[in-house]
Amino acid sequence: MNNTPIRLLIHGASGRMGQALLRLAAEDSSLQVVAAVVRKPPAQRVVDGIPHFAASELAGAPPFDVAIDFSLPEGFDPILALCLERGVGFVSGTTGISEIQQAALSAAAQRIPLVWATNFSLGVAVLAELVERAAAALPGWDCDIVESHHVHKKDAPSGTAITLGEAAEQGGAAPRFASLRAGDIIGEHFVQFTGLGERVELVHRATNRDIFARGALHVASQLRARAPGQYRVRDLVGRPR
Amino acid sequence: MNNTPIRLLIHGASGRMGQALLRLAAEDSSLQVVAAVVRKPPAQRVVDGIPHFAASELAGAPPFDVAIDFSLPEGFDPILALCLERGVGFVSGTTGISEIQQAALSAAAQRIPLVWATNFSLGVAVLAELVERAAAALPGWDCDIVESHHVHKKDAPSGTAITLGEAAEQGGAAPRFASLRAGDIIGEHFVQFTGLGERVELVHRATNRDIFARGALHVASQLRARAPGQYRVRDLVGRPR
Amino acid sequence: MNNTPIRLLIHGASGRMGQALLRLAAEDSSLQVVAAVVRKPPAQRVVDGIPHFAASELAGAPPFDVAIDFSLPEGFDPILALCLERGVGFVSGTTGISEIQQAALSAAAQRIPLVWATNFSLGVAVLAELVERAAAALPGWDCDIVESHHVHKKDAPSGTAITLGEAAEQGGAAPRFASLRAGDIIGEHFVQFTGLGERVELVHRATNRDIFARGALHVASQLRARAPGQYRVRDLVGRPR
Amino acid sequence: MNNTPIRLLIHGASGRMGQALLRLAAEDSSLQVVAAVVRKPPAQRVVDGIPHFAASELAGAPPFDVAIDFSLPEGFDPILALCLERGVGFVSGTTGISEIQQAALSAAAQRIPLVWATNFSLGVAVLAELVERAAAALPGWDCDIVESHHVHKKDAPSGTAITLGEAAEQGGAAPRFASLRAGDIIGEHFVQFTGLGERVELVHRATNRDIFARGALHVASQLRARAPGQYRVRDLVGRPR
Repeated sequence: MNNTPIRLLIHGASGRMGQALLRLAAEDSSLQVVAAVVRKPPAQRVVDGIPHFAASELAGAPPFDVAIDFSLPEGFDPILALCLERGVGFVSGTTGISEIQQAALSAAAQRIPLVWATNFSLGVAVLAELVERAAAALPGWDCDIVESHHVHKKDAPSGTAITLGEAAEQGGAAPRFASLRAGDIIGEHFVQFTGLGERVELVHRATNRDIFARGALHVASQLRARAPGQYRVRDLVGRPR
Repeated sequence: MNNTPIRLLIHGASGRMGQALLRLAAEDSSLQVVAAVVRKPPAQRVVDGIPHFAASELAGAPPFDVAIDFSLPEGFDPILALCLERGVGFVSGTTGISEIQQAALSAAAQRIPLVWATNFSLGVAVLAELVERAAAALPGWDCDIVESHHVHKKDAPSGTAITLGEAAEQGGAAPRFASLRAGDIIGEHFVQFTGLGERVELVHRATNRDIFARGALHVASQLRARAPGQYRVRDLVGRPR
Repeated sequence: MNNTPIRLLIHGASGRMGQALLRLAAEDSSLQVVAAVVRKPPAQRVVDGIPHFAASELAGAPPFDVAIDFSLPEGFDPILALCLERGVGFVSGTTGISEIQQAALSAAAQRIPLVWATNFSLGVAVLAELVERAAAALPGWDCDIVESHHVHKKDAPSGTAITLGEAAEQGGAAPRFASLRAGDIIGEHFVQFTGLGERVELVHRATNRDIFARGALHVASQLRARAPGQYRVRDLVGRPR
Repeated sequence: MNNTPIRLLIHGASGRMGQALLRLAAEDSSLQVVAAVVRKPPAQRVVDGIPHFAASELAGAPPFDVAIDFSLPEGFDPILALCLERGVGFVSGTTGISEIQQAALSAAAQRIPLVWATNFSLGVAVLAELVERAAAALPGWDCDIVESHHVHKKDAPSGTAITLGEAAEQGGAAPRFASLRAGDIIGEHFVQFTGLGERVELVHRATNRDIFARGALHVASQLRARAPGQYRVRDLVGRPR
């Protein structure tokens, strides 16, 4: 067991996720944020003990073990390049990246351990695994996925519901979807397998957005010791099987 | 794929489970009940096309592939002995067997494939597997098990809840139990893993007692092709991983 | 309290509901089936102690307190006419009746107490009332109704979901619907009211089709003492408020 | 309809509830906080446009329509006295008040409209009403109440579960309780009525603590127009029946 704190670079530190990452990392003694990268040159060089850098100053960042990136597609290439150059882990939740950027990610996975995901909730990652297994274990059962989110969510079904549906298909099921939009629900996913006379229900309920930052920090902490490769969140949860 | 119907001997054919087994097997063309064994010499030798035998006539049963036994501890030894003698599979849901009988079962597993279980629901078997995996994947999360059954059920928590709790412990969790007794609920098991800001719920609902007979028939159909050994129901559900 | 058993005429006694009514009424000492009416002249005049009549012999039925009718539209008029002639209660779950027959029903309600409904579950009746009240008490909250039924059900949303939606609208809500079709689910209705930071869920689960016959018998037993009028099932459940 | 903003005095303004009340009232143009009362003389006399007063300066508070009190038992008497003196509404969620203080409250209700409650969630208030009605409408059904809260909650069952249980008893049911303590669950209450073959479930889920402040503000806004009397939260939700 390596007890040295994991040194993190947070890329996109001024965004909502970036702020949550800084706040939650500060509560965890096994983590040390050594650099917070923001778009423009920061007004203060050090905030709450954490050195801040502009995106243009990325090359001057101190040594770190893993970078966590929640920024924009235009910031994605430089931070991935830096991780490759330093030979360190890369965790990204940046959405909207291009196919070329996806390809660069796959290429980088030959040399560094990395995770790119749209949902870093550990519970959702576990649920996807359970859904795949249940689908495989219960052939011929009907599979339904119902997801509920706040009324401001435009897309339906949710990206997470689609991921769960893919897991069900992987296990051999043919899922059907329903979407509810109500109040300020952060996110609920309900997957139901129905046979004759019995039913298995697998549910995830999110009640606090911090779970996404918490999951990204967990993933980063697992990545330091890993061989190069592209990991899914569910590959890095809990005890290895 | 072997398309010959699986030849079944039903031991304990006059009980509630035995009757359900006969009824459901008749609906499935991949199964053929070649012998129904009842305690006393039957009034009719052939009922609905199925030869009936008294327990005392067991040795004269025609060739079969798997025996399914839902009887009483005193009937357990002869049917296990017959399966060993014939070198065929054995499925038993007989409760209350002694430690000596349990030992005989383990010894028999060296020579024939067999299953002894208290709950043959396929959904429950899958749930147990999912619970173990979730517990292992979500260390530090709280684990609660709530089971609901009809008001006539005396024991609490239910045997199935205990089995689920053992699965959770196997995965590293420390489950707590609550039991509800209400109306004519056949059986519901709710397992909840709670972290910070998120929760995973795994639920099984039984709405028809036929699931137990259906599961036993499924297990029997899987057992014919198996090597000797003592299997759990969950080892025989769905597609192998 | 009137302790004389309520004398029932069961119209449509050979159908699935009719059979359930006969079976369940036999278990309840406060009820006495004095006539079972079937379409064609019955092979046996008395079955299990209950006199059987053909539809053509309706006029010769013995005195009764309430008729329960689960038949076909073509049998509806004669049994309603008989109840009017005798001045007794009428309970009907016959579907597909015409507007003219609906009008005849309303007219009859001037002279006898009657109930016509598509769902006789007491739990559903109570749920409809609760939904209306919740909708009125929680203005501005989102209302969603999710119903689940077996895969053989063709119509969606279910008639009961529509009734619950009408109750929600009565209370001022604008419900949205989703329908799941899976396995052999008898019927589940889930009504959710979502506000900011909190949610109220109202659910009905049916696990046995007997609830419809049981509800019809309950309604019949309540009707004997009622004044003329057209009642809903929910007007006759539980204690009066 | 009176369109003048309701003038509020917030007593206990520096506590967690007080802060939430100030924050949420600022977002609602129909409300105007004219005085925030804190224990000690405040460092700043006006914060975010709201005049602040020490408890010792209560008598000098400007005119207001309703006082909302979330303080301590020792602060309870002066604020109740002020409301009586001014003849205005009083809303209190202060816990731990003595029997003498309870008696003073009842006496005050002869002259001013007031609410004292331990849970100001509108959803919980509605649930209590629905539970009472369901219990009355479903005599003979089993009633179970399961409540879930975060692991730091010491008492069980929760005060709210007890209130729901009283509502069930009021309706004639004999509720049984189970309590789960897990993660950081804010509060969930599940009330189940189980009959033969069917079940009604009534659930409240809280996902944000703001609901308590939001409910107190709602209650205050309803109280201005009311006659003297001691109201429950559920008397003031939604449209009058």
